Amino acid sequence: MEIVHDPKDFQKRMMQFRAEGKAIGFVPTMGALHAGHIALAERARASCDILVVSIFVNPLQFAPSEDLDKYPRTLGEDARKAEAVGVDLIFSPSPRDMYPAGFGSTVSCGAITTRLEGAARPGHFDGVTTVVLKLFNIVLPNFAVFGQKDAQQALVIRRMVEDLNIPVELIIHPTVRESDGLAMSSRNVYLTKEEREEAPLINKGLRSAYKVFCDGNCSARKIRSHVEDIYAAASFLSTEYVAVTDTFCNDISGEISCEALLSVVCRTKISGTRLIDNILLV
Amino acid sequence: MEIVHDPKDFQKRMMQFRAEGKAIGFVPTMGALHAGHIALAERARASCDILVVSIFVNPLQFAPSEDLDKYPRTLGEDARKAEAVGVDLIFSPSPRDMYPAGFGSTVSCGAITTRLEGAARPGHFDGVTTVVLKLFNIVLPNFAVFGQKDAQQALVIRRMVEDLNIPVELIIHPTVRESDGLAMSSRNVYLTKEEREEAPLINKGLRSAYKVFCDGNCSARKIRSHVEDIYAAASFLSTEYVAVTDTFCNDISGEISCEALLSVVCRTKISGTRLIDNILLV
Repeated sequence: MEIVHDPKDFQKRMMQFRAEGKAIGFVPTMGALHAGHIALAERARASCDILVVSIFVNPLQFAPSEDLDKYPRTLGEDARKAEAVGVDLIFSPSPRDMYPAGFGSTVSCGAITTRLEGAARPGHFDGVTTVVLKLFNIVLPNFAVFGQKDAQQALVIRRMVEDLNIPVELIIHPTVRESDGLAMSSRNVYLTKEEREEAPLINKGLRSAYKVFCDGNCSARKIRSHVEDIYAAASFLSTEYVAVTDTFCNDISGEISCEALLSVVCRTKISGTRLIDNILLV
Repeated sequence: MEIVHDPKDFQKRMMQFRAEGKAIGFVPTMGALHAGHIALAERARASCDILVVSIFVNPLQFAPSEDLDKYPRTLGEDARKAEAVGVDLIFSPSPRDMYPAGFGSTVSCGAITTRLEGAARPGHFDGVTTVVLKLFNIVLPNFAVFGQKDAQQALVIRRMVEDLNIPVELIIHPTVRESDGLAMSSRNVYLTKEEREEAPLINKGLRSAYKVFCDGNCSARKIRSHVEDIYAAASFLSTEYVAVTDTFCNDISGEISCEALLSVVCRTKISGTRLIDNILLV
């Protein structure tokens, strides 16, 4: 396995692979690889000749108030984990090489990016889509694997790929969880010991609501308040939002009659860690 | 030669050509092909295996007040001209196929798109870059040829290609002119007989300013007013702007000390036709 930093060098190699008819699988990450990322890489490994993982903490998708500086950066450890799962190449550019002086372009996917996480984190999805398009153009993958944990991100990237005719197949992989149900996240390292013990409640609330839904209760309002009530009883977190939306991330107000997404964002009270999770109501 | 309308069909064919190692050359147009377009196609023909011309009057790059509806559409005649110059495939999609229900994405290239033509035509360049990125993703060309006549468009597309790491080589071809110097344009058909006779003055003004510049006069203000004075003496046109800018389309206020672009936009008084032209001051 090799680690390449320069975008032009990397793109040239990828062009060569494509010219040789090699199938390129791609897992974009911000590093701090955990079992969730590894599952995405294993999924990709099974279907490609060349497996690329990118590791880039993308400043464009962080607001000034967010955790860009403290976001974990563990390239050495990441490389060891990537090699163990059969990654061929790590692409790990510098912010300067991705956004050189004079850089001014943005890819934006419209209304879907202004809701849920887009409302909570203005500009976040423009940063995501801009970097993902750049990465697609540098890595030239046949397919790319994203995690369902970032459900809206997956929907936004699907929107971008369809709208802009991007010749990359998207694979959305189910959220990988700790044994107690907590969704794997690079941000879990921020949690205090107590918060980590309590954090599985976030997923428990979702599964409980899913059961309510499966029992025939299709009122979006009731599903939401069911989750809110469970979270309100927990002293370690505050709820940022609980949303029931369609796949365009539009709020569903009445009965749930189409494929719906129940998504939640909580913040822990001691470390202030922002945790997200979701479940499909189908 | 074949005409293909469906984006997915077209993209699939292009993927096949790329897999076979064929070099694809691409000339994007809005149709109404004239000798300028043909020169771009000839330039491309010389360096590729598969020559693609797209013909698509892109609604996104027209403001509501502009000439979208009356823009000339001459597919049959265009196909005849394209075939004569050795085009292999015409891609001619419908607006509905390019922008289906739910479409919401935009590619925007920042500050450079807000100046000159971007100031005169708000949103124009977002429409251009969005459609050009889509076309690049559908046609998958090794290189694309654009005309120098739309000088700012060429600079904006270069910005996009660099910023977004798009693996397409850009070739900017010199403006092709009528024998009397008028820049070829699909909009020239709008001109009345009298306007057509007078229109070469636009280029004459530029060449006269170029001579002033070559004689050692490097004041941007003097170059501008030299052109403005020439146009002011003409009864058939009004001047929309005369600009001396750098290659980021920033106005140059003092002496010209870098590669500069002298660009003009005029509107004829009878038919109201908007004519553009430019010359590099190097």
